[in-house]
Amino acid sequence: MKFLVINGPNLNMLGTREPEKYGTTTLSDIEKEISNHAKEKGVEVDFYQSNIEGEIVTAIQKAKGVYDGIVINPAAYTHTSVALRDAILAVELPAVEIHLSNIHTREEFRHHSYTAPVCVGQITGFGKFGYIMALDAIINHCCNL
Amino acid sequence: MKFLVINGPNLNMLGTREPEKYGTTTLSDIEKEISNHAKEKGVEVDFYQSNIEGEIVTAIQKAKGVYDGIVINPAAYTHTSVALRDAILAVELPAVEIHLSNIHTREEFRHHSYTAPVCVGQITGFGKFGYIMALDAIINHCCNL
Amino acid sequence: MKFLVINGPNLNMLGTREPEKYGTTTLSDIEKEISNHAKEKGVEVDFYQSNIEGEIVTAIQKAKGVYDGIVINPAAYTHTSVALRDAILAVELPAVEIHLSNIHTREEFRHHSYTAPVCVGQITGFGKFGYIMALDAIINHCCNL
Amino acid sequence: MKFLVINGPNLNMLGTREPEKYGTTTLSDIEKEISNHAKEKGVEVDFYQSNIEGEIVTAIQKAKGVYDGIVINPAAYTHTSVALRDAILAVELPAVEIHLSNIHTREEFRHHSYTAPVCVGQITGFGKFGYIMALDAIINHCCNL
Amino acid sequence: MKFLVINGPNLNMLGTREPEKYGTTTLSDIEKEISNHAKEKGVEVDFYQSNIEGEIVTAIQKAKGVYDGIVINPAAYTHTSVALRDAILAVELPAVEIHLSNIHTREEFRHHSYTAPVCVGQITGFGKFGYIMALDAIINHCCNL
Amino acid sequence: MKFLVINGPNLNMLGTREPEKYGTTTLSDIEKEISNHAKEKGVEVDFYQSNIEGEIVTAIQKAKGVYDGIVINPAAYTHTSVALRDAILAVELPAVEIHLSNIHTREEFRHHSYTAPVCVGQITGFGKFGYIMALDAIINHCCNL
Amino acid sequence: MKFLVINGPNLNMLGTREPEKYGTTTLSDIEKEISNHAKEKGVEVDFYQSNIEGEIVTAIQKAKGVYDGIVINPAAYTHTSVALRDAILAVELPAVEIHLSNIHTREEFRHHSYTAPVCVGQITGFGKFGYIMALDAIINHCCNL
Amino acid sequence: MKFLVINGPNLNMLGTREPEKYGTTTLSDIEKEISNHAKEKGVEVDFYQSNIEGEIVTAIQKAKGVYDGIVINPAAYTHTSVALRDAILAVELPAVEIHLSNIHTREEFRHHSYTAPVCVGQITGFGKFGYIMALDAIINHCCNL
Amino acid sequence: MKFLVINGPNLNMLGTREPEKYGTTTLSDIEKEISNHAKEKGVEVDFYQSNIEGEIVTAIQKAKGVYDGIVINPAAYTHTSVALRDAILAVELPAVEIHLSNIHTREEFRHHSYTAPVCVGQITGFGKFGYIMALDAIINHCCNL
Amino acid sequence: MKFLVINGPNLNMLGTREPEKYGTTTLSDIEKEISNHAKEKGVEVDFYQSNIEGEIVTAIQKAKGVYDGIVINPAAYTHTSVALRDAILAVELPAVEIHLSNIHTREEFRHHSYTAPVCVGQITGFGKFGYIMALDAIINHCCNL
Amino acid sequence: MKFLVINGPNLNMLGTREPEKYGTTTLSDIEKEISNHAKEKGVEVDFYQSNIEGEIVTAIQKAKGVYDGIVINPAAYTHTSVALRDAILAVELPAVEIHLSNIHTREEFRHHSYTAPVCVGQITGFGKFGYIMALDAIINHCCNL
Amino acid sequence: MKFLVINGPNLNMLGTREPEKYGTTTLSDIEKEISNHAKEKGVEVDFYQSNIEGEIVTAIQKAKGVYDGIVINPAAYTHTSVALRDAILAVELPAVEIHLSNIHTREEFRHHSYTAPVCVGQITGFGKFGYIMALDAIINHCCNL
Repeated sequence: MKFLVINGPNLNMLGTREPEKYGTTTLSDIEKEISNHAKEKGVEVDFYQSNIEGEIVTAIQKAKGVYDGIVINPAAYTHTSVALRDAILAVELPAVEIHLSNIHTREEFRHHSYTAPVCVGQITGFGKFGYIMALDAIINHCCNL
Repeated sequence: MKFLVINGPNLNMLGTREPEKYGTTTLSDIEKEISNHAKEKGVEVDFYQSNIEGEIVTAIQKAKGVYDGIVINPAAYTHTSVALRDAILAVELPAVEIHLSNIHTREEFRHHSYTAPVCVGQITGFGKFGYIMALDAIINHCCNL
Repeated sequence: MKFLVINGPNLNMLGTREPEKYGTTTLSDIEKEISNHAKEKGVEVDFYQSNIEGEIVTAIQKAKGVYDGIVINPAAYTHTSVALRDAILAVELPAVEIHLSNIHTREEFRHHSYTAPVCVGQITGFGKFGYIMALDAIINHCCNL
Repeated sequence: MKFLVINGPNLNMLGTREPEKYGTTTLSDIEKEISNHAKEKGVEVDFYQSNIEGEIVTAIQKAKGVYDGIVINPAAYTHTSVALRDAILAVELPAVEIHLSNIHTREEFRHHSYTAPVCVGQITGFGKFGYIMALDAIINHCCNL
Repeated sequence: MKFLVINGPNLNMLGTREPEKYGTTTLSDIEKEISNHAKEKGVEVDFYQSNIEGEIVTAIQKAKGVYDGIVINPAAYTHTSVALRDAILAVELPAVEIHLSNIHTREEFRHHSYTAPVCVGQITGFGKFGYIMALDAIINHCCNL
Repeated sequence: MKFLVINGPNLNMLGTREPEKYGTTTLSDIEKEISNHAKEKGVEVDFYQSNIEGEIVTAIQKAKGVYDGIVINPAAYTHTSVALRDAILAVELPAVEIHLSNIHTREEFRHHSYTAPVCVGQITGFGKFGYIMALDAIINHCCNL
Repeated sequence: MKFLVINGPNLNMLGTREPEKYGTTTLSDIEKEISNHAKEKGVEVDFYQSNIEGEIVTAIQKAKGVYDGIVINPAAYTHTSVALRDAILAVELPAVEIHLSNIHTREEFRHHSYTAPVCVGQITGFGKFGYIMALDAIINHCCNL
Repeated sequence: MKFLVINGPNLNMLGTREPEKYGTTTLSDIEKEISNHAKEKGVEVDFYQSNIEGEIVTAIQKAKGVYDGIVINPAAYTHTSVALRDAILAVELPAVEIHLSNIHTREEFRHHSYTAPVCVGQITGFGKFGYIMALDAIINHCCNL
Repeated sequence: MKFLVINGPNLNMLGTREPEKYGTTTLSDIEKEISNHAKEKGVEVDFYQSNIEGEIVTAIQKAKGVYDGIVINPAAYTHTSVALRDAILAVELPAVEIHLSNIHTREEFRHHSYTAPVCVGQITGFGKFGYIMALDAIINHCCNL
Repeated sequence: MKFLVINGPNLNMLGTREPEKYGTTTLSDIEKEISNHAKEKGVEVDFYQSNIEGEIVTAIQKAKGVYDGIVINPAAYTHTSVALRDAILAVELPAVEIHLSNIHTREEFRHHSYTAPVCVGQITGFGKFGYIMALDAIINHCCNL
Repeated sequence: MKFLVINGPNLNMLGTREPEKYGTTTLSDIEKEISNHAKEKGVEVDFYQSNIEGEIVTAIQKAKGVYDGIVINPAAYTHTSVALRDAILAVELPAVEIHLSNIHTREEFRHHSYTAPVCVGQITGFGKFGYIMALDAIINHCCNL
Repeated sequence: MKFLVINGPNLNMLGTREPEKYGTTTLSDIEKEISNHAKEKGVEVDFYQSNIEGEIVTAIQKAKGVYDGIVINPAAYTHTSVALRDAILAVELPAVEIHLSNIHTREEFRHHSYTAPVCVGQITGFGKFGYIMALDAIINHCCNL
């Protein structure tokens, strides 16, 4: 099994940005931890990050036929992007949505997700460990298909 | 007369995506039908597709002075893009908005269009035939200017 | 194939009313153009106009078994009539909703349509040419059933 | 480390209720799987289920000083209970909220959670595997305190 | 004159919970102060606390014919319980609603009270002294009946 | 056929409470009338009343396999209980919702029912006779299954 | 005692329309069953149906002095007609509102009724049997005046 | 100068309906008073009443070229009829809206008027004297054109 | 009979302000016309204008026992002043609210009036002639007390 | 300790206004009772009343350095004045908000208070006795600073 | 060129109030800085401050014919005063709205401004320097008229 | 000090678009004026324009460590982009938001800004002069850090 881990806008700034919310770990650090966890689980993972909504749409489209599922942290686009929602619908791949911080403790507009209803499920609030959980979840989901 | 037919995010996936809503016809098939219809009508058409909101903005800007009007299916950006609305306002070209499915039978957030109020009109629900109607409409509109 | 073209309240005033929005063409003129277009397309059309919501309901009911589809401009009743919606549901005939002006550029309450979700689709903003488009659309729809 | 796993109203009916949403596994089956997972992880778990909001409030209060954290599926009370929210606030124990189904694909009123903002995070949509994820999450959270 | 002082969910945790909002005084301490004040005023008071909405409903029902009035801090149920409102309506006893903290400085959902409109009045924000005020208020109210 | 008649919070106070709305008949009187009507109709009825939401949830759960249907007056919990809704969904027994007063003439928050959408139907405004109607309705419903 | 049974728009289509919601019984069939039930109960019933809101208003006005009460299924006008509400207020006759389907399981706009607050009560969801219930209810109501 | 005085649904019931709101005067009485006042002012008045929205639309349409202005009490249609609004817009005759009772003291839905924004002005709350005021207002308005 | 005519903020600027809405007549001109009309009607009128909400409150309070009624154009305070509403309630004098322009054609926030529900009625849209109508209305109202 | 008791608009009318809500006691009577209570408690009180929002703002500003706290019944300005809120914020004196009637039983717009969130607490519904309670509350608050 | 700088309620408290938001500078200090800047720019400035809404209305009215423009910090009245909006409309002088703090980071009700839409523009968040910017803006605006 | 001036979508069209709102000056003209002003002030400025939301996000990210602050006109993205808000948060550089036209006089959806709450402040309505003001503001802000 092979999965694509997608990170949305500003997540490339992790470790430099608001450390009290996200810690000092960089995105690269997190990707390494995910890779290690993937190896333990015997699955493959690739990574993609972009600040551009439409490029993430394209990345999701290209995932079709290549990956068994997607782990996605759409970041700001969670709350504003119908295009990401449509892309996930279009490729018909299982996806797991993950957020580092607990979006329910932040501004009202961050409580709503356009993508969550087209994902298998959503994980929010567990920091970088959420990615490990998300990988476990997508593996478990694909094993039970 | 010369028109630009713009298709927004995920429409490049047509024929692969949710066939019960959009059929198995690809975007390329549709563009051919539009081309044929354009020939019959004695007008020229060019095509543009992008998943990136800002690139569509740029495409609309460049249409000024080159095309007599625009046929646009903004797809997901219909509901979230003020930038597309502003681009259409800026170029002051007549535009016709077209949707494949009937947006009024889908999720509440798809009923609203940022672009419709700055277009000549909107066509929704007639599948690929909607593009033929849209071309007829923009031709008819330009003939009556 | 045979279609019924229904016009709602105040459309009998066309040509006398707000000419900057609807032009000076009368409803009778429009019906003639539709008839001509129908002849070209080899289909039959009949016309019905009423200012009374319940009479339009009855007209729709009677269309069942007589017509293959309906072209309807419900005018003001678009925004207030659940009865028209129910009538279209009841007869299970394909219907195309058409508006002369672009309802998305008018008052907020004109953006919502009770009837659009039970129609094949909606055409708005193309003036009298919208009826020609609507006839094309209903014919195309019925040919593909 | 020792954790309390709380299940809210109607979860005692699991396996008999709407199997297309929750599967045929009973709550007892799930609790066994959680116990096994806990053993592997070297932590203790206890279980509590009640249909009565106030009894769950009391169970949370009594968890203070006994458990290191709480895994809770408040079920229907997620959406209506300020008392559960206050109980979690009062005991100042870390809690992880978990839902079997993806609440974002269900009725609008199920999208809102009174308890999520006072939990570490929320997991939704992964079926019974969500409990395993929740246990992992609470362990990880407590290890990093 | 004899009054029942009712405390709702989580108030049994007073003194252990969020001391910056409620101080370190326990519910038992507060009840002693109320008792002392009652003695000074020459009235009798009894106390009831429960975390269970329906039990508080029953307590209110049983107050009829036994007590001259009720002092109630419905806590979380203030904002969610129509049943408490109906119970107060049913027994037709005067009631005074009291909150320790100023509910108008907390979350939006705590500003609304289902019970306040069926009480004589509401006291909010004065900490434990609010109970003394509430007792004075219910005595004063009953003396003026 | 055997039915369970459930009455929610404060209905045990009937006859003592707001007689202008509910009359002086007690719940016991009503239950006798229902029993008599049941005998005439040749069906069995049992009765349950509780002020505690979670106990009513349990009563509904236990009805499964014992009763053919439920007649329920959820009283205040009509407007606040997702747990009752879920319980009715879980047991998959037909239920009829009944209210003594016309909820549409009372406060706005009493117009909404969480339970009505999962019941066969709702009867409101006919006083104690509503229970007779509800019994007739559930019998009729079960006969037509 | 003599009652008028009024049916609103599209109910004349019963038996032809959406049979999964309303069954195949025609309005005429239902009226016969009501007549039979009326005979058993020893009361008179007349019937009126119209698709026109204002005609139903007139029918209600004319009922004054002729009938003891009204059974009304306002259908679509339930949700849009203040005129029907005013007519019922004007004649000061007791009225019972009845709907075939459970309006609480349909579109949001069908949950609200302009007429219910001026009726004795509302019955919804019991199919044609609802009319029998409504007749029983209006008889019972008039007997208790 | 010649004016048409239009009365909407249920106003034909005046004098029989809710006398505490409208008095015992019949519509015919009021029309006589208006006629007398018109004679004093040296203008002509005709009267029209209908319960049917679409008929009032037609009456307004026919007023064009015959009358100098309209005095209209749209009654219930004030709050629900876009068709009346469109009719007044279409005929481009000055109109004065009048209500017997003060609509601002009644239900929330009666505060809004679809017709007021297309009238010269609105008079509400002065009982039958409001018609005299309305006639004065339309005369004054026409004199100042 | 003696009446007080009150004008609110900025009405002292009449004749200088937005003449297309209010004409070039000054407040003093209008007061003269009102005085003349009062003389014809055989009643007395006094005038008061202030830009200060609280001063108008005081003026209304002082009107008690001196005047038989009030004609008031609260201008901007119509939409923002609960204090004016309370003042009118407090003095229990009949009041008539008048606006020069048709508030229903202006910004949404001008459609709502805090004072209209405590006045006999409201007149809006007839320019300075509205004051003459208001005086007639208050006289007529007082004659019928 | 020295306190300022501020009364807002229309409270100078107490005893003359709506006696069923406020009794026949005048503001002067109430102030005497407060003075007597103050003497018993060994504190000083001064009184201020104004109908003008900005004057109350100034009175609050001047209280700084002179008084230890404020008791304020902002009356109508409770619901409309951000300026009073800002004044209380600016002087950083503890304030207690008091209302004679229970604002939660009155119009919806009276449920909201701009000033309550910047006060220590709010007392509502206990008539003139509320001032005694408010004085006790501010004294108690200042003793515990 | 000559300008009037108006400051609304509580701004006379500057330097004493919430220094973390506004600094310790007094209004008088700010006015001196504005005066100095005005001299450099070769324009005249006068200053006005009041806590009373209606007095500011009057000040704006009197500015007509005396000043070329207005710089205004309406403070609390920004969010509640239609009267200030109308005053600015009435005098037809260009006005610039300025706020010391960034209103978009404060309470929701401070985000809305009644006055901004009738001003040339709005400056918010730059502390006392905002007044210098505002003066520059109004000068620049007047130079370009 | 060195600043980055960012312009969002469609601002590259300045001078060609809606000249009545923005004048005929091009973006290049404005940038020259800003450069000149920067030189006078002794600071450096660079410019960036993009139609692509994600590219502006990247530009903001890259500004970190290079610039002392940002002047940004997010244009359409002001109202729709959480990603821009997050980017400004992430880089922790002071930013000043500027709009050419007064957004408060345009469509409702343009009144809200996602970016303003994370900027130092917002300037709106002063045309191209707003950029000069913005530069002054960011310089002044940085001098006072």
